Amino acid sequence: MNGRSTESRWLVTGLFLVGTLLLLADDAGAQGPAMTKPAPATDGKVRIICFGAHPDDCEFSAGGAAALWAARGHHVKFVSCTNGDIGHWGMAGGPLAQRRADEVKRCAEIFGIDTEVLDIHDGELMPTLENRKTIVRLIRQWRADIVMCHRPNDYHPDHRNVGLLVQDAGYMATVPFFCPDIPHLKRNPVFLYYEDGFKKPNPFSPDIVVGIDEVVGKKLDAALALASQTLEGGCDGSQDSYPSDLEKRRAREQQVRRSFDGSFAQAANQFRKQLADWYGQEQAGKIRYAEAFEICEYGRQPSKKEIRELFPFFPNP
Amino acid sequence: MNGRSTESRWLVTGLFLVGTLLLLADDAGAQGPAMTKPAPATDGKVRIICFGAHPDDCEFSAGGAAALWAARGHHVKFVSCTNGDIGHWGMAGGPLAQRRADEVKRCAEIFGIDTEVLDIHDGELMPTLENRKTIVRLIRQWRADIVMCHRPNDYHPDHRNVGLLVQDAGYMATVPFFCPDIPHLKRNPVFLYYEDGFKKPNPFSPDIVVGIDEVVGKKLDAALALASQTLEGGCDGSQDSYPSDLEKRRAREQQVRRSFDGSFAQAANQFRKQLADWYGQEQAGKIRYAEAFEICEYGRQPSKKEIRELFPFFPNP
Amino acid sequence: MNGRSTESRWLVTGLFLVGTLLLLADDAGAQGPAMTKPAPATDGKVRIICFGAHPDDCEFSAGGAAALWAARGHHVKFVSCTNGDIGHWGMAGGPLAQRRADEVKRCAEIFGIDTEVLDIHDGELMPTLENRKTIVRLIRQWRADIVMCHRPNDYHPDHRNVGLLVQDAGYMATVPFFCPDIPHLKRNPVFLYYEDGFKKPNPFSPDIVVGIDEVVGKKLDAALALASQTLEGGCDGSQDSYPSDLEKRRAREQQVRRSFDGSFAQAANQFRKQLADWYGQEQAGKIRYAEAFEICEYGRQPSKKEIRELFPFFPNP
Amino acid sequence: MNGRSTESRWLVTGLFLVGTLLLLADDAGAQGPAMTKPAPATDGKVRIICFGAHPDDCEFSAGGAAALWAARGHHVKFVSCTNGDIGHWGMAGGPLAQRRADEVKRCAEIFGIDTEVLDIHDGELMPTLENRKTIVRLIRQWRADIVMCHRPNDYHPDHRNVGLLVQDAGYMATVPFFCPDIPHLKRNPVFLYYEDGFKKPNPFSPDIVVGIDEVVGKKLDAALALASQTLEGGCDGSQDSYPSDLEKRRAREQQVRRSFDGSFAQAANQFRKQLADWYGQEQAGKIRYAEAFEICEYGRQPSKKEIRELFPFFPNP
Amino acid sequence: MNGRSTESRWLVTGLFLVGTLLLLADDAGAQGPAMTKPAPATDGKVRIICFGAHPDDCEFSAGGAAALWAARGHHVKFVSCTNGDIGHWGMAGGPLAQRRADEVKRCAEIFGIDTEVLDIHDGELMPTLENRKTIVRLIRQWRADIVMCHRPNDYHPDHRNVGLLVQDAGYMATVPFFCPDIPHLKRNPVFLYYEDGFKKPNPFSPDIVVGIDEVVGKKLDAALALASQTLEGGCDGSQDSYPSDLEKRRAREQQVRRSFDGSFAQAANQFRKQLADWYGQEQAGKIRYAEAFEICEYGRQPSKKEIRELFPFFPNP
Amino acid sequence: MNGRSTESRWLVTGLFLVGTLLLLADDAGAQGPAMTKPAPATDGKVRIICFGAHPDDCEFSAGGAAALWAARGHHVKFVSCTNGDIGHWGMAGGPLAQRRADEVKRCAEIFGIDTEVLDIHDGELMPTLENRKTIVRLIRQWRADIVMCHRPNDYHPDHRNVGLLVQDAGYMATVPFFCPDIPHLKRNPVFLYYEDGFKKPNPFSPDIVVGIDEVVGKKLDAALALASQTLEGGCDGSQDSYPSDLEKRRAREQQVRRSFDGSFAQAANQFRKQLADWYGQEQAGKIRYAEAFEICEYGRQPSKKEIRELFPFFPNP
Repeated sequence: MNGRSTESRWLVTGLFLVGTLLLLADDAGAQGPAMTKPAPATDGKVRIICFGAHPDDCEFSAGGAAALWAARGHHVKFVSCTNGDIGHWGMAGGPLAQRRADEVKRCAEIFGIDTEVLDIHDGELMPTLENRKTIVRLIRQWRADIVMCHRPNDYHPDHRNVGLLVQDAGYMATVPFFCPDIPHLKRNPVFLYYEDGFKKPNPFSPDIVVGIDEVVGKKLDAALALASQTLEGGCDGSQDSYPSDLEKRRAREQQVRRSFDGSFAQAANQFRKQLADWYGQEQAGKIRYAEAFEICEYGRQPSKKEIRELFPFFPNP
Repeated sequence: MNGRSTESRWLVTGLFLVGTLLLLADDAGAQGPAMTKPAPATDGKVRIICFGAHPDDCEFSAGGAAALWAARGHHVKFVSCTNGDIGHWGMAGGPLAQRRADEVKRCAEIFGIDTEVLDIHDGELMPTLENRKTIVRLIRQWRADIVMCHRPNDYHPDHRNVGLLVQDAGYMATVPFFCPDIPHLKRNPVFLYYEDGFKKPNPFSPDIVVGIDEVVGKKLDAALALASQTLEGGCDGSQDSYPSDLEKRRAREQQVRRSFDGSFAQAANQFRKQLADWYGQEQAGKIRYAEAFEICEYGRQPSKKEIRELFPFFPNP
Repeated sequence: MNGRSTESRWLVTGLFLVGTLLLLADDAGAQGPAMTKPAPATDGKVRIICFGAHPDDCEFSAGGAAALWAARGHHVKFVSCTNGDIGHWGMAGGPLAQRRADEVKRCAEIFGIDTEVLDIHDGELMPTLENRKTIVRLIRQWRADIVMCHRPNDYHPDHRNVGLLVQDAGYMATVPFFCPDIPHLKRNPVFLYYEDGFKKPNPFSPDIVVGIDEVVGKKLDAALALASQTLEGGCDGSQDSYPSDLEKRRAREQQVRRSFDGSFAQAANQFRKQLADWYGQEQAGKIRYAEAFEICEYGRQPSKKEIRELFPFFPNP
Repeated sequence: MNGRSTESRWLVTGLFLVGTLLLLADDAGAQGPAMTKPAPATDGKVRIICFGAHPDDCEFSAGGAAALWAARGHHVKFVSCTNGDIGHWGMAGGPLAQRRADEVKRCAEIFGIDTEVLDIHDGELMPTLENRKTIVRLIRQWRADIVMCHRPNDYHPDHRNVGLLVQDAGYMATVPFFCPDIPHLKRNPVFLYYEDGFKKPNPFSPDIVVGIDEVVGKKLDAALALASQTLEGGCDGSQDSYPSDLEKRRAREQQVRRSFDGSFAQAANQFRKQLADWYGQEQAGKIRYAEAFEICEYGRQPSKKEIRELFPFFPNP
Repeated sequence: MNGRSTESRWLVTGLFLVGTLLLLADDAGAQGPAMTKPAPATDGKVRIICFGAHPDDCEFSAGGAAALWAARGHHVKFVSCTNGDIGHWGMAGGPLAQRRADEVKRCAEIFGIDTEVLDIHDGELMPTLENRKTIVRLIRQWRADIVMCHRPNDYHPDHRNVGLLVQDAGYMATVPFFCPDIPHLKRNPVFLYYEDGFKKPNPFSPDIVVGIDEVVGKKLDAALALASQTLEGGCDGSQDSYPSDLEKRRAREQQVRRSFDGSFAQAANQFRKQLADWYGQEQAGKIRYAEAFEICEYGRQPSKKEIRELFPFFPNP
Repeated sequence: MNGRSTESRWLVTGLFLVGTLLLLADDAGAQGPAMTKPAPATDGKVRIICFGAHPDDCEFSAGGAAALWAARGHHVKFVSCTNGDIGHWGMAGGPLAQRRADEVKRCAEIFGIDTEVLDIHDGELMPTLENRKTIVRLIRQWRADIVMCHRPNDYHPDHRNVGLLVQDAGYMATVPFFCPDIPHLKRNPVFLYYEDGFKKPNPFSPDIVVGIDEVVGKKLDAALALASQTLEGGCDGSQDSYPSDLEKRRAREQQVRRSFDGSFAQAANQFRKQLADWYGQEQAGKIRYAEAFEICEYGRQPSKKEIRELFPFFPNP
């Protein structure tokens, strides 16, 4: 390698670092200690905790439902089980982890919910006993009625391991002397899987489908707030994904928004029949955007009636 | 085996369980979620964090110094790295862990400090990367000036592993992108080891010796508050250690208190010469109770002057 | 917390401990060394080894079949892969582990079989290589013709991991230089799964269904002998489950027995058709109690004829 | 034990060792450092990497297709994820590992491909993060268009773990800063599973079936080159499998060759219908030997057209 | 259970074991099941358990003392913590492990002691929690008064890890609810280290030196019985070490015996002064062969008097 | 946090990324596959392999000696056991790892040696069996005569673990069937520790001290080539360490060079007496720069004469 080109390469880096740091300096407080927030009040509201592999998974899989719940005063928390520190084409490590933590904090503000990011390397989440216990504690601390996660046959090893870990945490959340430092749940929560398109060993079963038209604007805002993953293209992007020219940036934002608008509409079309089960034929026909969930066999098996109590945005049947 | 005797054995157990549960019922709130307390204020006071293997180790090794600091408004936190769930001759598991967490909470009230117990099985603390990160986060969150732990050649595998883990966390607490979810320390703390009697590979070096006469009453109160380990004899006790007869109980309490009074006096006698270095010959001669600490090579190496700032109870030299 | 209530809480504990210890003292021999029993004789009898997650799983899943085999001189061994030390609402740790080991020893006497409990924490069984080797050694030492375990999609993480471990031990039991310290099996055993109700990724397949009317009394006796899990309610019980009042206790015992009577009858009703395959229509119609097993693909695939030899209580076809 | 018989046993061993060593001595170069070969040229040819559990799995599962590709100048590499060091009735450990490495090198010469054996104990491959990264690096270094492996429900724990590891490596091979020491793939490869006969949770799906008549001689030669596993019977053999008498050896070779001829013909008969999809009815009818592959959901999902480009030995449709 | 019945249980076991062994002897015998022998009788004799890394380490480090104890009816057990399966220049894996197990069984016969080999790969012993528990169980089962092991600064990683594991097992052997499946020791044993020549961090301290002239013949016989390691040269040998020619073999045996005679004499010369402490000047001067041990700080610290009781072959002082 | 400031912060990032990528594009080949280089020729020259924790440790600890050897045609390789991906105040993860790999490649060019970086996260190197085997393979592949590493009591957990891993790899490198995929060494190399200032459990022993005046310019050039760690200040730097103003940059470079000049001189002054042992009093008095090494007890113990052969730059005695 030519020494000169190396030098000039890192010269540019140096310039970047200066810029970043100046901005970070403004914002020193934003990186406060990773302090666990207090558990939600015991106020008769539904308490939902959603686990995703990376800081954007919960947002895309359940952001609409979360916003619906939050708007009605229910308590929702999103947990990213890795810090997402390899989820970009040009940045990685701690700086990316910090950026993505900021992105999901912004999403939580948009949705009106809580959020937490576990500091585990992206791509390296393993189904260990320690991680199982962490999940159990988070479920218990939130005193969850509903727990959501990826199916264990989703496409990414971190997604699959979130699925395994949450499954393994399920029953254990109710066992008094597992993790005796935190009170156990008296009742096993309902466990739900996010929608995915994989067929083996079983296709996704759309047991519960929620229309999210009322909050789709928030979900689209969140998509743009997750700029590292959307505007900039995440792992698959490049310097051209979100160029510095401001006009091109605005165009890119429009395009990304339109693209997500289409993708959020997909579940409504695909699961129109199931929407009708919950909303009635007529109302279901008008729903443009939806999110679908499968009931996991390992949690409490809710009746239709109980589902309507847990998802209090379905019309009376 | 005779079925009958088994039955009657567990009958007694049943009776016990009833009693315990009634009491637990009173106290439901006491087992609140294991919530990390906020970090101490940035108020110019010294911030000390002490790691011990079991819920009594910090108390015996540094309870006096902690009470001295706390009485002057400095910020002290004790962390037990295991939950102590095998530290008794007749109880174990979660019920013992909960009991011992209560005991160290009571000690923290006596000393005027914070306390935390990690929910790791007693006898099973291993020097894993996960545990190293936990220690780093605790040190950072406390923004520690002083960190204390066992020497890595102490007698108990958990003690040794606390020593290794804290050593390994030392420098890492200052590295920005190790555990990027929590701000790093700008300055490596001073690391101190507790006193022990082991000679290999090196004997304990009494680099700092603190007279604790002013607070020895608190330390004795704490010793009795750690009833599972003291009055009842911990692993080495038996049903006779602390019998149900109230008069015998009072006698046992007196005896245990006297015994600890003697043991707390030992360091003062053993390290009289070092006391003189810090307190002057005359004052040192009067000190009855002391605690001694060795400076670890891996932390910041403080000057005598800085030690006096960190231990602001030494007289001016 | 109020210091006083803590003190009185543990006072009761102290009393309990005294009682327990007195009984334990009688019984010092009962805690003999965890010695592996000799392997069964090579006498032409069938040798069956059953793995369960907790000290009650084998008993409930295969206790009837075990008693049938034992009554005919065949060799059955139950292995609990964890010590069950969190399986109660009011006790935990070593004392519970010892109690549950006693319970399954009593069951083994009732059934006429051998039993062993691995000293692994309940809720913490992981699919490690070490555990795989332990399972291989147990299968080999028993020179098993039949090996039973949970399906790997059962509801509890320990159940699932028993399923994985036994599957992974399967073929390896026949490989000469895997675990060269113990002679390998020349023939892969038949591997069977216990019945469960889970549907994904596949529902349970009742390949072999055994009528257990002849021994149902033993299975009910065993259910009561597992008092910590049945009379006292295990994790889900409370002080009211099995109160100290003797009359109430007798009532509770009756109620538990009736309840298990109903539950043991369930398989017979659910798998009546499969019973007819093995017993003929007429005899099958009269069977009140049954146990069902699925043949695992990873073991030897037995013919119907071979199944009849291995389960020598089916009538001649 | 009779000392004499032991002595004579090891005397024989000693003689064997002498013989082996003499042969090894000839061949000192064959045991050269385990040096990773350079990646294949970027020449527009297809690049295929196949992972098997033991040094013979790739050969039997995909040796025919490999030879077809190699004959057309495409780049094929076989990777054995364990060193096969317990795969014999009479040898084990390093000497067997070295022998089996030699066997697959000979196969690679026969097929015209590359080969590599990972030095992991046979029977002990675990789905660790380290192993996942090794697989990712191998896929990237080969710049693979196609990746093959066992299904994760195959019969042997090592096979299943190869399946899990390769699945988990799949998407990660495309993530830039996972394993940043080696350039990531811009395009996720097509992942294929080898044929097996297991039914749960899903039966094998013969998505691609390749006629291998053109190269079946090479595959049979390879079968004999894997002498430790075939002529000598692997784990299930004995000293009688391949006796020293030369005439008997020739007979054994003939018999083994015939037996594999039959087994290589099986897939063609079983998947005749699928062969017709790729070769047309008439040509398919004439194919005697075949290999079948299932497309894994986690890799790129190729169109029929793309499959024909990747498997350029299908006739034009 | 009734103590008497326990006793008779093991009496029967003993008879069984005799029977089994007779049968096993017939049979490949050497390949008997890895059955844990019964614990030694409680007969007032000293109980010694020695841990070594490989099947020859205990023999060379403490074979003389073991033979002295055994000759006086005390109970000695040697445990090899790995199976030694890479300890040869020409064999490895299971066949070598089985051979070395045979060798130490022969040594045990020579010395009159018990022996056990853990089936852990040579070169791969790690200081895991599982291994710590195994050591604890072995110490408890033997109800050891004395435990011996390598120093944790010996030259081989397996030796060092044996040192760490035994140190870590030390105190834990006395904790009731660590490994609750086996009764804890009421008294911490005396822990001793074998002699080695390493200087850092501390040189070996010859706290106890035992003259072994009385049994040196047995120790030399044992050295020859460990043929794979001695006559054949272990890792460093070659086909020429112990050739097939019988005359050369006899010569080699003589040479090896002479060489060990010299090496067993070394400790007596090196530690003559310490021998005098135990045997008096005159007797010490005549001792030709010795073994030396260092007292580990983590076990019970015995007085001189207690050492003489534990090593009852020293003359009265 | 204010959404706007986040946006502008990352806008700057975007700009940086563009710059970096353009430069990377120039240099596509530089990131070639992590291919293990061929082993050095067997040419009678000395073969040295040095292990450091981070990509700069070998350079600072042994860069001078390496350059001396290389200048005489001997074969030196530096291995960084982590990728250094948290060693900076403003960058981290893959981009930093890639940058630091480039830096040590540049140093290798300066010194005339080989270099390799293991892709293990900085701060996360653990003493696992897998890592031990990696070290063994690297030592064997280099057919090392000398192996260097940190002392296991150096200040950083990664340094300590490099020390442990290399110690544990030492003897194993000579065992034929440990890592049977690569030929073992017939002779244990000499193991050397780098200099450090720690006193416990033992101070560094300057057994070999090498004057490096002849090559100190190269070592200073290397120090500047490690810009991320030196000019920019590594973990402890900031945006001000190496500002964009070109004049200030030149000044910073001068200052850093001077500072290292002083630090490289330190060993010569500190170990002047030992220099005299190797160079004679007169020549030693003139040496300005030096590097010192301690001989590890676990490797071959070289005579003075052998040391002079291995370090062929000492004058004849």
